[in-house]
Amino acid sequence: MRIEILNTGTELLLGNTLNTHGAWFGRELFKLGLRVGRQVTVPDGDAIRESLSEAVGRADVVIVTGGLGPTSDDLTREITAEVLGLELILDEAGLRSLEAFFAARGRPMVEANRKQAMSPVGADILPNPNGTAPGVYVPPRLNGRGNCAVFLLPGPPRELYPMFHAEVVPRLRALSGIDVPPLALELKFTGIGESDFHDGIDDQLAAMAGLEYGYCARIGEVDLRLIGDAETIARGRELAVGAFSRQLVSDDGSSLEQVVLRNLEARGWKLAVAESCTGGLICSRLTDVAGASAVLTHGFVTYANEAKVEMLGVSEKSLAEHGAVSETVAREMAEGALRVSGAQVAVAVTGIAGPGGGSEEKPVGTAWIGLAMEGVETIAVKIYQPRNRKDFKLAVSQAALDLVRRSVG
Amino acid sequence: MRIEILNTGTELLLGNTLNTHGAWFGRELFKLGLRVGRQVTVPDGDAIRESLSEAVGRADVVIVTGGLGPTSDDLTREITAEVLGLELILDEAGLRSLEAFFAARGRPMVEANRKQAMSPVGADILPNPNGTAPGVYVPPRLNGRGNCAVFLLPGPPRELYPMFHAEVVPRLRALSGIDVPPLALELKFTGIGESDFHDGIDDQLAAMAGLEYGYCARIGEVDLRLIGDAETIARGRELAVGAFSRQLVSDDGSSLEQVVLRNLEARGWKLAVAESCTGGLICSRLTDVAGASAVLTHGFVTYANEAKVEMLGVSEKSLAEHGAVSETVAREMAEGALRVSGAQVAVAVTGIAGPGGGSEEKPVGTAWIGLAMEGVETIAVKIYQPRNRKDFKLAVSQAALDLVRRSVG
Repeated sequence: MRIEILNTGTELLLGNTLNTHGAWFGRELFKLGLRVGRQVTVPDGDAIRESLSEAVGRADVVIVTGGLGPTSDDLTREITAEVLGLELILDEAGLRSLEAFFAARGRPMVEANRKQAMSPVGADILPNPNGTAPGVYVPPRLNGRGNCAVFLLPGPPRELYPMFHAEVVPRLRALSGIDVPPLALELKFTGIGESDFHDGIDDQLAAMAGLEYGYCARIGEVDLRLIGDAETIARGRELAVGAFSRQLVSDDGSSLEQVVLRNLEARGWKLAVAESCTGGLICSRLTDVAGASAVLTHGFVTYANEAKVEMLGVSEKSLAEHGAVSETVAREMAEGALRVSGAQVAVAVTGIAGPGGGSEEKPVGTAWIGLAMEGVETIAVKIYQPRNRKDFKLAVSQAALDLVRRSVG
Repeated sequence: MRIEILNTGTELLLGNTLNTHGAWFGRELFKLGLRVGRQVTVPDGDAIRESLSEAVGRADVVIVTGGLGPTSDDLTREITAEVLGLELILDEAGLRSLEAFFAARGRPMVEANRKQAMSPVGADILPNPNGTAPGVYVPPRLNGRGNCAVFLLPGPPRELYPMFHAEVVPRLRALSGIDVPPLALELKFTGIGESDFHDGIDDQLAAMAGLEYGYCARIGEVDLRLIGDAETIARGRELAVGAFSRQLVSDDGSSLEQVVLRNLEARGWKLAVAESCTGGLICSRLTDVAGASAVLTHGFVTYANEAKVEMLGVSEKSLAEHGAVSETVAREMAEGALRVSGAQVAVAVTGIAGPGGGSEEKPVGTAWIGLAMEGVETIAVKIYQPRNRKDFKLAVSQAALDLVRRSVG
């Protein structure tokens, strides 16, 4: 079943508002075993005509968002009726529900709102308990242009999401006849790049009958998604994990920070983090996960040398002899964080984010990561990630979290 | 000049990755006086054929992103050549630059990367200093299908953005014949919402002849964008700043964290930050700005109560009597951070990010922000932002940075 998404909104194309509908529909439809074949964004108003006309001639289902409001550039209803060759009529039940919405909030209903109760003749009105714009469903049989179903939904997420679940999902299930969604598996890897997959196992994955797969490369991470039946997915998983077992972060969608926290919590261990060049990003990533407080107790953002000395007990001699970005200081930071916090594991990073501060010996992009654990010798690894400041921070945070993951197991 | 954006990437339609390219292109093209007429997202691989074919038959410029990598589902180059009726050939200069990229990083270049040096005959190869995928520019004269220019650009932002500025902008300027983009001014406000503008000055802005304007509402921030001639923009600015002077963060595109750092640096002051519920996000936002090290010396991520006591000297009595999320503890955290760091200003946050940990008295979304300054009485303010965990962290960090901004002036 080919599904197309059509988002209307000038603010989306001017870049004032990020279009999150595309990703949201992708995730929600995938759960139903459905895929988005194409997503299109057009400005408010008349621009929707061309795109809608193309989409209904091609797809089985078209989902349109936005343009159902009361103002003059809200034309989705009118243009849809025109494109489908249907008359637009006032829906009395829709009008009463609109009147009730305003009455419940003690607000006057203005004349412009009346047009929100208009819909193509024969279409279903989809109630909107969270706003003034009811949705519209035009079943395939009404569509003079072909056998395509059309949904018109409001743009604001707080109105769209509940309406999608209550009104759209049951109709999509009926249209698609799919009861059981396909199986999918996402494997997250770190410490390798997409080209390592191509070099290593891509040919073998491509040769597996019935397997769909794709890569998504991020900074310090590659996700491999496998789609197919249970047996095929198991074979694809075996191949990928066999080739890159040390680099496997998770096979259940868990992020690196979730895996790190889960592994530490399972052992009843606490973590301390000392950050210079990442400036708090490692702690912030960990605390994005609910329940991080059970593991992360102390974070030290020691940007200044004095902070490294005062908060972590790094020796002034080491700073003077080796510099703040050095193996020695990374070790001392990690050991200091372990000692001060009383945690069982401590990770520390120190590096040169740039744009200034680099030298021939230690160019921008250089970082040392130290890892201290109770009863184990402290280790330090050097990485080189010459990137812009934000990406450098992300790459270093990824390497530091991965060092914790590998050390804790 | 009609511009269409075509983004390829199965991960965008499956919802694995949010498509930020649409908004980014919108903003960048707007600065050149250009608008996006349509933005389309299609899966990797063959699906691009249909959309590209439609777009080149309709637009003056088509910008394609993604699918230039080395793997088997990267087909943008091949399909573009086919759609435009051009032969695909190996570009020797492109191959050498690719070899140099790998050599500089001490990585072997695998056979699959060779295809990244292929391009339609006669097209310009656009150098990519930040990755392996060079871009491609097919000028209108080569396009057998019409008078449309086609750009093929890499998907990853760190590769796309520099290439767009270095290679695409000059060509777009030449194609469009626009030398002088319209004047635009962006005013950033915090502590008010878009509805405050609607209630306050929207009618007056709408009545200003020759002024185009728009709002962009983010968490804890509203941007007002004014477009027009110099005099009109000045009048719009005067109106907006007059109405919301205390809430004005910047009129030069500077972020709140940039403004805070700049104000502190101008006074030669240092800042310390103590974070509980934001878990490092405030420090991380500040250290995203180059030169933050001149101002931010000490950051304390004190998630655990013991960390608040040990690192900041918060009294156990206050924690027991008032709880960690309280006015008293927020003050003690800020004062402790000031004392331990020796900075002139310290800000502290403590709150309930959720989903667990809320109570009737202190529901999820409650936070206290403390601000301590040398020689001034410590203040604390309460905010309530019932949002998901990440958005809560962002809203609290925004309020904390704004409190520093207002206090330092």
